This record gives sequence, C-alpha cells and structure tokens, in this order.
Amino acid sequence: MKNFDEKAISMSRKNKGKIEIKPKVKIKSFEDFSMIYTPGVAAVSRLIKEKGEKYLTYKWNSIAIVTDGTRVLGLGNIGPDAAMPVMEGKALLFKYLGGVDAVPITLGTTDADRIVETVKAMAPSFSGINLEDIESPKAFDILERLQRELNIPVWHDDNQGTAAVALGAFINALKLTNRKASDARIVFIGAGTANISILRFFRAYGVDPRKVVVADSKGVLYRGRSDENELKVKNRQKYEIIQETNEDNFTTVEEAVKGADAIIAASAKGAVKEEWVRSMNKDSIVFALANPDPDIDEEKALRAGAKIYGTGRSDLPNQVNNSLVFPGVFRGVLDVQARKITDNMAIAASLELAKYAEEKGLRADYIVPRMDEREVYYRIAAGVGIEAQKEHLTESNMSYDELYENAKKLISGSKAKP
Amino acid sequence: MKNFDEKAISMSRKNKGKIEIKPKVKIKSFEDFSMIYTPGVAAVSRLIKEKGEKYLTYKWNSIAIVTDGTRVLGLGNIGPDAAMPVMEGKALLFKYLGGVDAVPITLGTTDADRIVETVKAMAPSFSGINLEDIESPKAFDILERLQRELNIPVWHDDNQGTAAVALGAFINALKLTNRKASDARIVFIGAGTANISILRFFRAYGVDPRKVVVADSKGVLYRGRSDENELKVKNRQKYEIIQETNEDNFTTVEEAVKGADAIIAASAKGAVKEEWVRSMNKDSIVFALANPDPDIDEEKALRAGAKIYGTGRSDLPNQVNNSLVFPGVFRGVLDVQARKITDNMAIAASLELAKYAEEKGLRADYIVPRMDEREVYYRIAAGVGIEAQKEHLTESNMSYDELYENAKKLISGSKAKP
Repeated sequence: MKNFDEKAISMSRKNKGKIEIKPKVKIKSFEDFSMIYTPGVAAVSRLIKEKGEKYLTYKWNSIAIVTDGTRVLGLGNIGPDAAMPVMEGKALLFKYLGGVDAVPITLGTTDADRIVETVKAMAPSFSGINLEDIESPKAFDILERLQRELNIPVWHDDNQGTAAVALGAFINALKLTNRKASDARIVFIGAGTANISILRFFRAYGVDPRKVVVADSKGVLYRGRSDENELKVKNRQKYEIIQETNEDNFTTVEEAVKGADAIIAASAKGAVKEEWVRSMNKDSIVFALANPDPDIDEEKALRAGAKIYGTGRSDLPNQVNNSLVFPGVFRGVLDVQARKITDNMAIAASLELAKYAEEKGLRADYIVPRMDEREVYYRIAAGVGIEAQKEHLTESNMSYDELYENAKKLISGSKAKP
Repeated sequence: MKNFDEKAISMSRKNKGKIEIKPKVKIKSFEDFSMIYTPGVAAVSRLIKEKGEKYLTYKWNSIAIVTDGTRVLGLGNIGPDAAMPVMEGKALLFKYLGGVDAVPITLGTTDADRIVETVKAMAPSFSGINLEDIESPKAFDILERLQRELNIPVWHDDNQGTAAVALGAFINALKLTNRKASDARIVFIGAGTANISILRFFRAYGVDPRKVVVADSKGVLYRGRSDENELKVKNRQKYEIIQETNEDNFTTVEEAVKGADAIIAASAKGAVKEEWVRSMNKDSIVFALANPDPDIDEEKALRAGAKIYGTGRSDLPNQVNNSLVFPGVFRGVLDVQARKITDNMAIAASLELAKYAEEKGLRADYIVPRMDEREVYYRIAAGVGIEAQKEHLTESNMSYDELYENAKKLISGSKAKP
C-alpha cells in the first residue's frame, strides 16, 4: 500500500500529470496552418452550420468527467483540486481502455442547481457526460435532471458503472456457488449511490427484493424505524427500500447477515465485521467496494469463511471496479452516437463482462476479467451499441461484429507514444 | 481559397477532428493501474489536499478555450457546434506552438451572466481561461468580471491577443516607413473588441489619441454624433473614444483617411474602399484584420498605394494574427503560474515579436515573424514571464534564459507523433 502511494506520487511528480492534449493532425509545412486554422477552418464551420455534419471535430469522441469533489474515492469531500488526480487518472483509463477523449472538469461549486446549470451550459462541447464522485443523495437528483434535460448521455459511474460491474461479478459469483438470483439472501452495507444502484440492477436481473436487507450508517432499514417518515421526505430511495425489502423486518445487521448468501458493502473501511461474515451461509459472497480501503480486508473475509471476495482495488483479485465497464460502455455509446445510456444498456455490459470471464474459466479469484484483458472492452462496446440500436436511441445500424472491430481499432490506437 | 476550404474539410473528415487526449504515462504492466488509478491515486489526492502541491496533475499546464459562438471569425453568430472547428484548431495551435494543453469549451448559452457563472464554476479545472470569439460589447464585460473574480489569468484573444500582435506589427511598420508613434495619424475601421483593444495598446505605446479617428458601422465617431448620449449608457468604450480621439472632429471616413498614415481595419470584407487608401499619406500602412476575408484585398490595397499591408490570414505575408502571440503568452504565464495577464505582459509579447522580426531583417512583406518561426514563441514566453515576475504576479523567480530554455523544451516536445 505504502509502496503504491509512493510510486503514484513520484510518477505524478515526474510526468507533471498523466494526460495531455495532442495534435491528431501532422503539420508538415507552414501552409498546413491555413487548413487547421484560418482561413480554411471557416469552411468546416460553415459545413457544420449548414449540414450538421458530425465527424468533423473531436467532439464526436469527447466527453467530460465532471465532479464537485464531494465524495472522492473513500476520501470524502476533498474539493476540486484534490479530486483532479482521480479525474485525470480516469481520463487516462478512458483513453487507454476505451479510446475515448475525456476531459476532467473539477467544479468550484457543490450546489446541485449550479452543477446542473454548469453542465448544461458546457454540454455542447461534448458527446457525453460522466458524473463522478458526487455525494449522495444529491448525485441522483443531478443525474436525473441532466438525463432529462440534455440530449447526450449522462452517466454517473458510482451509479450505473459500479452497478454494472457488480452485477457482472455477482452473476459469476452465483454460478460458482450454484445459486439462483431469485433465491439469494443479500445484505447491503451502505445505502449511498453505489449500493442503491447495485440493488436496482440486481432486481432487474431477478434478485427478489424481499430477501434483501439494506443497512445505512444508522443500521438496518426496516419498517417502523424511527426516521421512516422523515426519509419519505428527505431520501426517497431509502424510503422505497424500506417498503420493498427486508420481508423479515430484521432490525439489526447481526440478525440480517445470519445465514445470508452475500454481503455487498460500499461504505467505509472496517464497516463489515469479521463475525458477520462468519455467521453467513456457507460459500458466502463478500464484495467490499469501499475504495481505496475495502469495508473488510481480504484476509479477514476469507478467514471468516467467504468463498468469493471482491473489491474495487486493482491490486487484488476480483476487481469489482467500474474501470472494467465505463471505457467499453462509452466506446459503444460514442460509436453509435447514442442519445442516452439506459439501465438495459449498462446491463448489456454486465452480461458481456460475465460471459467473458466465464469463457476464460471461472475461479473463486476470477469472477471478473482483469483490467488488462482488453478484449472485454471491445465486447462491452459491441454489446452496449447493439442494445442502444435495439432501443432506438441512435440512427446507427451496425452488427455486433462491426461494432466490435470498430472498438478494437479505436482502443488499440490509444496507447501512450514515447 | 476554394482550395484551402476543400483541404480543410477533407483533413477534418479524414482525422475526425484535430486534437485528442493522450496518456503522458506509459502503462507497462497491469500493476501500473494501481498507481494511475486506485489505490495509489488517493495518496496524490491527499498530498494536494494537505500541501497544495501544484505539479502533480496536468492542471498546471491546462487552460480552457471558451466561446459562446456569437462572433466566430468573420462568420458571425454561428453557435457552439459550428464554433468547435475553430476552437479545436486553436487548441491544436496552443499545443503545437505553445506546449499548452487547451480544452475547447463551446457554450450552450449566450447570456453574459450565465457565461460568467459557468466559467467561474469550471475554473478550478484549469490554470487559465482563453475567451474566444464572443461578441462585443458583452465580451469586454465578461472579460472584466472574470478577471476580477478569478485568481487565474483570463485572456480574450480578440482583445489582448489581437492588440499585442497588431502593436508588434505596427512598431515595425512605423520603423520601415520612418514614422514615430506619437506623430501617426491612424484611422480605425470597426469599433469592436479587436480595434478598441488595439487602440488601447497603441496608446500605451505612445500613439496620440487626438490624431486617431475611429469609425463604427454607422460611420466616424465624433463629438455631436446623434447617438453620443445614447452611447454614454450603452457602450462606454465608444463614448470614451468620442471624447478622447478625433481632435479635428472629422464626421466622415472620407475626410479622416485623407492624408492618414495608417488604417487599422477589423470590420468585415469590403469595409475598406480602395479610394480611401488612395487618399492616404504616402508609404501608408493598411492592416485588414477581418477574418477569413480581409476588409480590403491585398491587390487592391497595394494598387492604391499602401506600402505595408497585413491581414489575419496565414496564406498571405504579414500575418497580423493572434496565433503569433497567444501560444507564447500562455507558455510564459503557465511557466511562472501567473495569477493574471496584464496589458504590460501582453505588450512585452509585442516587443519580443517586433524585435525578433527586426533581427531577422524587416521588409514591407516581413514586419512580423511567420507562424512557423518557433523561436519567437520561446522569446515571447520568456518576455511575458519576466514581466509577470516584475509585476509580482507570481512566486516564480527565473531568468530570461531559464524561461526561454524551459519554453523551448516544452514547445519542442509538443508535435503530433505519427
């Protein structure tokens, strides 16, 4: 850990950052300036004005990574400057794994209305928006408003991204432990953006909400909890969870985890106790998604009897991290110039992810592909593109193979040149 | 002309844009992800949060090119999408000529307040703001407010940029025609952002405003013009011009140009008549800065007796275009991390520009360097950095030679790699 920290710092210092903007056009002579800039560029502007032609600027392939720095990794509200290394790292992954030109935008406001207004005002610069590390429940509201008011896809990685990779991993965890989604008893630790979205995706895949229990920082969500009526006003998502989950109406996490098949934690370091895991059903599944410090350590979870353990970290096996998903999702979305990203498009990514790992051979320490297995990004791009076409969210009409080859070409060309 | 248009369009189509985002860090193995992204990146965020360290992300070298698309080149109000090729071309020049990472931001609003709010909200993402192609007089207001309210430099190219290159060119035009700034009789055709700023810079250099005449679309600005009182409220700059220029109180352009030493036009194609040039003093100077179509053609101006003719176009000699200035100015500003760009810093660029061309040998068709004479950008960077230090707008304390070498290194490394 210390080692990664030092390496990360020295690498950042040495390169003075991780991304840069590069010309895509080679300038061979002085005359080339007349095509790149004035006078020639005016003809390109006129053509866009008159015909709306799309592929004349880098915009077709560019997105913004937008944060207000209020919930960066597990570090909390650290503000826009300290958020920049994370956004920049993400931009690098977007390019390296997805061939996408992503611009980090770290905002100087944490006010939901101003965030919405700012993103709307800058939206014509981009073909997609990736919201990142914005605190909950504000994040849901911002996402929904922007999705409604913009005609380009707006994605919150902690929402659909985390949910898509968690579902992909969960599908394979179920397979490896011979369980059915509809029978699984699952305890969610943490009721922030990530877990609420994971629950939504799990339900869409067939998980029975009545067998699910969700805990927030105050403990289990159950009917009759003292703040139930308050939540009705203040946190719609949690209120709905109270109504729809926890059919046994457990009131403590200790009761809920006893005999449970899976714990999905996205809270904070130490939020999951070893004795909870010990009391679970055999061959249990534990996802500890708090980042960078998981909710429970690998060693403790395995010692307590977990068969499958996953985290958001790239230095441990089973990296249940949205990095596996967002590059391919946006590659697919941009290649068909889709107007939005539906849950079903994100779930198409989950299915591609699960299938890829299954074909490679599932093991307790291999339920999702590794980040460097590039083919998975091509497949996700193709799967997402096909789903967008099926839902009529694009004018495009390409085959799976065409989308796959296209994504492969764009992603392969995106490595750093010395 | 047609030829440039076609080439510009086919080049844009072929490359699908002119810039891209590239990793600056080579990813050699799977383990490198742990430094670029989680878990290592958290340590970089913490260091910024705790110590405010500046050079850990690309932000130190990044700026935004912001437009609302209301006054793009000579094309007028063409909106954000059609403005993108110009902003993208500019971003390419920023990198290629200045080593600066510039992000094109084309806004979906033309409201001054919303533009100011949007730029302020996104400002923590960047170390500088380049306002571009925003209509006058709104542009002045936006520039002034942002300069006052942000602690990073805010530059409007049509203001300080055009003014700096025009002054550099004018200094050499005066030398070549054996004139003194304080004696020059100058007629400005057009009273938009560019010309108003050029006049301000010329005055700072020693031009006598009483010998200057300015014309807007309604004709010459003179005391007693029917809209004088209206301008007092509606257009402060023009009102001040009326009070301070045109001591002879000429009421028509025809009177004003007779015997004038220079015409500085930044209006529109055809705005300057051949007979006007014919009536000027001998060895006259004509800058026709409307872009892409100059206010008067080269052939006509020379036929009518102009000794020195300059335009904004890169396919003609004497390119009086801010492209000669902004890359070096921002290189210098970013290298010292200056908090603002004063007129004197921009005038330092004019002086470097003029001196460089003079050293190379002035001719009627060489009063400014060509865009591909890279050394001029290193010199401007150094001159601007020195002036910023002199004005205590930075913590930095480097010598001219250090700044020069630094700029040279960063700019040389910025070419497109095949």
